[in-house]
Amino acid sequence: MPTSPQRGRFITLEGGEGAGKSTQLRRLADTLRETLRARGAELVTTREPGGSPGAEEIRALLVTGETGRWSPVTEALLHTAARRDHLERTVWPALEAGNWVLCDRFFDSTMAYQGYGLGLGRGSVETLQTAALGGFRPDLTLILDIDVETGLRRAVARHGGEDRYERMDIGFHQRLRDGFLDIARREPERCAVVDADADPDTVQARIWSAVSSRLGLPS
Amino acid sequence: MPTSPQRGRFITLEGGEGAGKSTQLRRLADTLRETLRARGAELVTTREPGGSPGAEEIRALLVTGETGRWSPVTEALLHTAARRDHLERTVWPALEAGNWVLCDRFFDSTMAYQGYGLGLGRGSVETLQTAALGGFRPDLTLILDIDVETGLRRAVARHGGEDRYERMDIGFHQRLRDGFLDIARREPERCAVVDADADPDTVQARIWSAVSSRLGLPS
Ligand SMILES: Nc1ncnc2c1ncn2[C@@H]1O[C@H](COP(=O)(O)OP(=O)(O)O)[C@@H](O)[C@H]1O
Ligand SMILES: Nc1ncnc2c1ncn2[C@@H]1O[C@H](COP(=O)(O)OP(=O)(O)O)[C@@H](O)[C@H]1O
Ligand SMILES: [Mg+2]
Ligand SMILES: [Mg+2]
Repeated sequence: MPTSPQRGRFITLEGGEGAGKSTQLRRLADTLRETLRARGAELVTTREPGGSPGAEEIRALLVTGETGRWSPVTEALLHTAARRDHLERTVWPALEAGNWVLCDRFFDSTMAYQGYGLGLGRGSVETLQTAALGGFRPDLTLILDIDVETGLRRAVARHGGEDRYERMDIGFHQRLRDGFLDIARREPERCAVVDADADPDTVQARIWSAVSSRLGLPS
Repeated sequence: MPTSPQRGRFITLEGGEGAGKSTQLRRLADTLRETLRARGAELVTTREPGGSPGAEEIRALLVTGETGRWSPVTEALLHTAARRDHLERTVWPALEAGNWVLCDRFFDSTMAYQGYGLGLGRGSVETLQTAALGGFRPDLTLILDIDVETGLRRAVARHGGEDRYERMDIGFHQRLRDGFLDIARREPERCAVVDADADPDTVQARIWSAVSSRLGLPS
């Protein structure tokens, strides 16, 4: 875990299917990269599950095959194993070197999907994350919030291969959304909820406003 | 987790490299199968990591590659993911059906290898196992104890491909042995330590004596 006082910041993007995480990550990265260049720091962009060679191998087990291939508990354990590898090999070394890291999904997705969506419950996911990550947390988490129908409509139109979760019923996606909002309510210092039901430029401006004010950057 | 009062018993075999687990598992299985036949129950033999299709895929990530491929924490998480799948798909259904299960290695190996041998510590391995397995434990654990040099000499003579741990230094193997003995001291009701430094027939007789007395079988 990075301990240097010069360490960079760790920002995560969270939200349900089609909320715009990947789209907004690219836009936020362009802006952040500019801002950091002036400080002599770099920006690393990454994603979960994956983000390191070992974690990408675990990802392959997670994103392929049938919906019921892994139980919710096993799935949470595999995500957490991939997360630990990703942190040790990619995220922590970058932060320790003073660089910033921007990550598409992180442990709030395990909490929302397995904890709230698939019924594992807050307690066991929380215990697992703490045991595995030793209390490490993002400096800022942007939760892109959108109504379930709009998000799914966007996701379906995108046409991706990894659609295991898009095929879950609407109740699942509603629990997911409520879960992310509950996470934000419980940790308001770490989490900023961004209304993602607007055109990409507007959402981008909302995100930058949250990032610059929360992390003390020139807006 | 099996809850039926008719559920079968779960017996695990533990110990360091070359202690004789796999050899004695086959011998114990032959005897147990006979004994159970009279009761109309069957015996399932299995091993970790692995023992179910998903867990075998995770095993492939664990037993191949360089020694430093995974950190101790990631390795413990992958073993625990494989274990959960193995329990859900293989062990629990067998026990629930009234059959007995005999398993080559189980969670005490994670505690001994990652907790004691690789320095993770008891606390975090314990927390992880409890969070992942919900308090499920074997009915009986046979810990095959042998001095480190004799065990390693046997293991090297065996010539196997999966020798990642055999190549660790002698201090590691000593911590492993001490770890298994410490586990047995802390849970004397569940664990029986068997002196494995004798010919196979003698060790087999010691094991059967422990199994029959602990589980109330005709010796
Ligand atoms: N603000 C927006 N308005 C309309 N469509 C959007 C918006 N943001 C993203 N999209 C489109 O919606 C789909 C899903 O966006 P994506 O960024 O992949 O979401 P996520 O990564 O959260 O699943 C993509 O086809 C993307 O181009
Ligand atoms: N009691 C014993 N005395 C001598 N050699 C043994 C004994 N038990 C097993 N072996 C041999 O030692 C090697 C390791 O035994 P094995 O059962 O594979 O140990 P483990 O599964 O605990 O690593 C094998 O070649 C086996 O034939
Ligand atoms: Mg995306
Ligand atoms: Mg063996």
